[in-house]
Amino acid sequence: MTSFRMADITWPEYQEALAGDPVILIPVGATEQHGPHLPLSVDVILPTAVCEGVAAAGGYLVAPPLAYGYKSMPRSGGGQHFPGTTSLDAASLIAQVRDLTREFVRHGARKIAFIVGHTENLWHVSEGCDLAYRENAPNAEGLRLLNVGYWQFLPAATAQAIFGTTSIDWDMEHAGIMETSMMLHLRPDLVHMDRLVDHAPSRVPGYELWPYDIEAVPADGVLNTASSATADKGQQFLDAYVSSLSVALTEAFGAR
Amino acid sequence: MTSFRMADITWPEYQEALAGDPVILIPVGATEQHGPHLPLSVDVILPTAVCEGVAAAGGYLVAPPLAYGYKSMPRSGGGQHFPGTTSLDAASLIAQVRDLTREFVRHGARKIAFIVGHTENLWHVSEGCDLAYRENAPNAEGLRLLNVGYWQFLPAATAQAIFGTTSIDWDMEHAGIMETSMMLHLRPDLVHMDRLVDHAPSRVPGYELWPYDIEAVPADGVLNTASSATADKGQQFLDAYVSSLSVALTEAFGAR
Amino acid sequence: MTSFRMADITWPEYQEALAGDPVILIPVGATEQHGPHLPLSVDVILPTAVCEGVAAAGGYLVAPPLAYGYKSMPRSGGGQHFPGTTSLDAASLIAQVRDLTREFVRHGARKIAFIVGHTENLWHVSEGCDLAYRENAPNAEGLRLLNVGYWQFLPAATAQAIFGTTSIDWDMEHAGIMETSMMLHLRPDLVHMDRLVDHAPSRVPGYELWPYDIEAVPADGVLNTASSATADKGQQFLDAYVSSLSVALTEAFGAR
Amino acid sequence: MTSFRMADITWPEYQEALAGDPVILIPVGATEQHGPHLPLSVDVILPTAVCEGVAAAGGYLVAPPLAYGYKSMPRSGGGQHFPGTTSLDAASLIAQVRDLTREFVRHGARKIAFIVGHTENLWHVSEGCDLAYRENAPNAEGLRLLNVGYWQFLPAATAQAIFGTTSIDWDMEHAGIMETSMMLHLRPDLVHMDRLVDHAPSRVPGYELWPYDIEAVPADGVLNTASSATADKGQQFLDAYVSSLSVALTEAFGAR
Amino acid sequence: MTSFRMADITWPEYQEALAGDPVILIPVGATEQHGPHLPLSVDVILPTAVCEGVAAAGGYLVAPPLAYGYKSMPRSGGGQHFPGTTSLDAASLIAQVRDLTREFVRHGARKIAFIVGHTENLWHVSEGCDLAYRENAPNAEGLRLLNVGYWQFLPAATAQAIFGTTSIDWDMEHAGIMETSMMLHLRPDLVHMDRLVDHAPSRVPGYELWPYDIEAVPADGVLNTASSATADKGQQFLDAYVSSLSVALTEAFGAR
Amino acid sequence: MTSFRMADITWPEYQEALAGDPVILIPVGATEQHGPHLPLSVDVILPTAVCEGVAAAGGYLVAPPLAYGYKSMPRSGGGQHFPGTTSLDAASLIAQVRDLTREFVRHGARKIAFIVGHTENLWHVSEGCDLAYRENAPNAEGLRLLNVGYWQFLPAATAQAIFGTTSIDWDMEHAGIMETSMMLHLRPDLVHMDRLVDHAPSRVPGYELWPYDIEAVPADGVLNTASSATADKGQQFLDAYVSSLSVALTEAFGAR
Repeated sequence: MTSFRMADITWPEYQEALAGDPVILIPVGATEQHGPHLPLSVDVILPTAVCEGVAAAGGYLVAPPLAYGYKSMPRSGGGQHFPGTTSLDAASLIAQVRDLTREFVRHGARKIAFIVGHTENLWHVSEGCDLAYRENAPNAEGLRLLNVGYWQFLPAATAQAIFGTTSIDWDMEHAGIMETSMMLHLRPDLVHMDRLVDHAPSRVPGYELWPYDIEAVPADGVLNTASSATADKGQQFLDAYVSSLSVALTEAFGAR
Repeated sequence: MTSFRMADITWPEYQEALAGDPVILIPVGATEQHGPHLPLSVDVILPTAVCEGVAAAGGYLVAPPLAYGYKSMPRSGGGQHFPGTTSLDAASLIAQVRDLTREFVRHGARKIAFIVGHTENLWHVSEGCDLAYRENAPNAEGLRLLNVGYWQFLPAATAQAIFGTTSIDWDMEHAGIMETSMMLHLRPDLVHMDRLVDHAPSRVPGYELWPYDIEAVPADGVLNTASSATADKGQQFLDAYVSSLSVALTEAFGAR
Repeated sequence: MTSFRMADITWPEYQEALAGDPVILIPVGATEQHGPHLPLSVDVILPTAVCEGVAAAGGYLVAPPLAYGYKSMPRSGGGQHFPGTTSLDAASLIAQVRDLTREFVRHGARKIAFIVGHTENLWHVSEGCDLAYRENAPNAEGLRLLNVGYWQFLPAATAQAIFGTTSIDWDMEHAGIMETSMMLHLRPDLVHMDRLVDHAPSRVPGYELWPYDIEAVPADGVLNTASSATADKGQQFLDAYVSSLSVALTEAFGAR
Repeated sequence: MTSFRMADITWPEYQEALAGDPVILIPVGATEQHGPHLPLSVDVILPTAVCEGVAAAGGYLVAPPLAYGYKSMPRSGGGQHFPGTTSLDAASLIAQVRDLTREFVRHGARKIAFIVGHTENLWHVSEGCDLAYRENAPNAEGLRLLNVGYWQFLPAATAQAIFGTTSIDWDMEHAGIMETSMMLHLRPDLVHMDRLVDHAPSRVPGYELWPYDIEAVPADGVLNTASSATADKGQQFLDAYVSSLSVALTEAFGAR
Repeated sequence: MTSFRMADITWPEYQEALAGDPVILIPVGATEQHGPHLPLSVDVILPTAVCEGVAAAGGYLVAPPLAYGYKSMPRSGGGQHFPGTTSLDAASLIAQVRDLTREFVRHGARKIAFIVGHTENLWHVSEGCDLAYRENAPNAEGLRLLNVGYWQFLPAATAQAIFGTTSIDWDMEHAGIMETSMMLHLRPDLVHMDRLVDHAPSRVPGYELWPYDIEAVPADGVLNTASSATADKGQQFLDAYVSSLSVALTEAFGAR
Repeated sequence: MTSFRMADITWPEYQEALAGDPVILIPVGATEQHGPHLPLSVDVILPTAVCEGVAAAGGYLVAPPLAYGYKSMPRSGGGQHFPGTTSLDAASLIAQVRDLTREFVRHGARKIAFIVGHTENLWHVSEGCDLAYRENAPNAEGLRLLNVGYWQFLPAATAQAIFGTTSIDWDMEHAGIMETSMMLHLRPDLVHMDRLVDHAPSRVPGYELWPYDIEAVPADGVLNTASSATADKGQQFLDAYVSSLSVALTEAFGAR
């Protein structure tokens, strides 16, 4: 069987896969600081792993991820002032979403899902989808576009089991327990738990300010403590996301 | 004393007001369906009223509001399929934020706050501010730009008193208790409580989909019940917002 | 009867109004200096009043006005160097015209008129209409877009009666007799006749120059004398405009 | 002596000419119908001839003309529906004005004049100049940009002598007496006076409408009669324009 | 017979010519340094001459050339640092190609060829064509767009006869034997062979660098020696290009 | 020692690496058909491998590659009609180059090299660099940007040894001997030599045509035969590229 990784297959294999009307999953990541303990590519690695988990069941293709995303905001990613955070303007990200949609539609795809791994991408991917749908829908019967932040699909049971609550402030989870655990599960070689410093959570105010109030952002870029992260929790997160997103995607795109 | 409403004063009056280094407040609204009981201009009226409440204490100018905003999203505004919802592409809203900032900076203003009245505007006003700051900061010492959704500054006491909780899902409050109450307080002539239909809250899924899953959005555009709204609650909301935003703005822009 | 003001009605009311195939009137104003005696919002107030006058007869909806317009030019608005003049780049105004047209067309409107209150807007609204027509006409049978500066429809009789001539240099009328009179009629609380200074008319040369030749523009921003303005003349202007524009719009959009 | 035509000289000659701080004249034309008797390039030929007349006195360089301009409007050029009228969107023309200004500034030029030969170009060249000035002025001390329609500089005496009035409706002069006369003087081989048809002047209404009201535009594209045009008048026009524009340019750019 | 030069004919003549389904040839030039011996307009003059040579046989119209092109690159045009080189950003050139295509399609043309005279234009004209085809093809049956650098069609026999090889490094031919010879044939009044300085060819490295490595570019802007250029060779080049391009265009657009 | 892969390191590690003034290498790839025997990601894998080879010697950081590039052209990549080829518009690629440059400059980098793995990217990366240099150079002393197609740095000795000539038509090498050999060396699991079909090389004409002349492109997307490719040759290619690019980058950015 050929791979579900678009990057790994030839064009005739891709053509054959397309004939089955698969859902194209496009991980939309970022290159962004994730504290002293995690690499800059967390937001690429995690949605890609989730996509590959979903795709393993068949009926999906995973496109190459977008490695750069929208600008990091103080309250959900620490802000743009951290070295290593390497971001795009909104227009650039929107344009890529439009271009990719146009191309996949040309190939014959009608089910296209942007699986976002970086909070700040969501609204710009949304605008990209809206413009892409406006452009392509008239000539692509049955076209469906989807935009989702994978972390939003944590099942209540998993949330309760790990966080002890189902009401999670995801903005604060940047480089926190969830991301650290999943990285410990997927790429332990890139995680440095020994560098974690315990400190109070971020206290970014409810408005956005330019220039940033840098004092309000923890100096290490971790918005909440990650010290209880474990690889085992990481596997629980990953399994839960794969499972709940599979259900959601089936619902959204219809039975396959 | 001259008015704090920029629209109402002459240019020499404006020039004189600028000499006091005021905060420019720009309400950023929308023309959007708000159920069968509220007019299309709720998202203009409310932030403007909040701005005027803040400005009454002095040290502020209220610029003419932007009457059109970013597209309504199913989960926070019902979606673009409602007649009357009249929206801008992201690029158009971003461009206005850049232009207005450039102009106020040219006038000599260094404290500029976009007071958003429509959830979907937030991220695009943010990109506008980011681009405007990049463009203007090198030549405008001390420039500060602020972007805030006014509703995010509800004091815990007011939330508890009215909602019985401090954990509010603001997306669901579209045309709900808060907006309806404030309209009953400010413009009762434009509210039609008798047209409210009780129905279950919106159950929009956690992803965005094009075309919309219209079934998931209540047919009347009200995402949650507004039947307990009263003018008295409206006054409480308004007073609370004016008070908490005044504090926040003073914090953000420094003592005046 | 529901209001003809789009801002004041609910979406079901709007939907019902649309069923009658009304002309949508969109006032396109500016925030611009108008001398020491008039407020910054003259170019919003006047076209809105004209639109509402026209709409009172039925068959029209008045959309929320655009409060910011294209840059003020020395010969027709004094220029951008006056504090308070707060303008958009051409691309930003053009984009709004496109977006609004797209939205009203989606609602089902086929008769859309931009009623301009600020000379400098005209050519950019025109480009916006041209692009909007190109985009929407193929899928909106019977679509008609109109762009007009309301002041251009002064009937000869009124011109003769008030100015003593039918050949009026409208560029010079910025903050002059016509605008001042109409403001005295509509919003006398915002007019300060006592602050008017008599001086010679503007002598801006026939070319445009950057940087501006500021010497050529009167220091108070009034291009011609407004001292003979009266509220009575204001009413005559308003009545005349309402009457002649009603005829023109009926001609342009066909009998209703 | 080397030519004042930029197109005809080598780069070392250009470099030497630049050392004298000349005014760069850029004819901004159009490819547009000009009736059954004139070629499509009238709006390129005429401003180029005027520029060359001005430049002959020294102190100027004439850059290659822009052969395509903004869209023809019914009231001043007949409209876009005529075959042969080949026009640019506003953004494209604005971009060229910005690019050319940036380049001439890089060469060391500080006096740059756009000499427009097509009414509809004026506002877009103006926006181009405004954006170009904003971009370049901070780093180009003494930079001056100018935008002018050459026809607006007809001396009163010439107007009186030829038209019998100094109050000319230039919009109606499209392919009329002035343009036809100048073409008879400059390029009689391209003029076909025998094809002129006498008809009433254009009666385009005071608003712009999409789709055009084609009935209101004369079928031959001539907005007013040109039958009294002569080569002799053409020379008078040309001499008058060269003379009055030389004065205006000297005034605008300072003594040289 | 009317001219094949679009600039020289009236709109009814153009309309009649269009009825014959001609190929529209659009020379896309540049204003760029061409050494101490050639004028800045070489890249306009040469493709225009080739187009006119092709068009003389009938079935073609030659549109007014674009006089400004994309930025000069060190390895193929010496670079942007030479005075006189006056270039456009990519977006500006792309936009013109789109606009012109849209217009010619509106006129009824279905065969449109951009004949490029400046290496650096090629990829941007290509993008312009791609966007224009995407926009226009759905509504213009049989539309064909072509983009070619005329110099790429030198027949092997001519290459062998003049260069002694068929493997020519065209980048090095900037202001070299071919261009100089053709200018000697077409516009000897603009060529100054006595100013040629013999020097070693350019040795620009295989990468592009900002800022330019100006040392690597010959100071006179001639990338290779042109001293053996003659008018006779120029005629051979021109005849060969006209002949081979006529064949290629016939092949590309089908028999006429 | 920390990795030279930016994706694999934390922000404090990145910050420390930046202090050494490294050259940032950004692989700019594509997702494009590469015949029946190679995967869609060849143009990502190869430049990334070359960058990592160069970086192993120290003084470099390798940024995450861009996985999508400019449109495939018939003569150098087969064309856009192949399924799997998933490309960006020029503006989108240009925008990313600008954004990335701005970000790396903000981090403190002054040596930035785009290492292109896909021919069609070159001119758009060049425009991106030009705009990025214009924007950033005034505020980033010593900034150097570089754009190169890695394949252009094949040493003559390697070319002679493998191809038997130093004059290689790289356009024809799409999915040919060089790319296939390098993939056999680097990712043999993704190569299917048994699927190669021998056929004559592509005979795409010297012009570009829309719609494509698909007949001229081999149906399998291989422009030239790749049957003599071997992993051993692949290693020779890789070693040669690493070696020659290291020299070139040292030359371009100065001794380190």
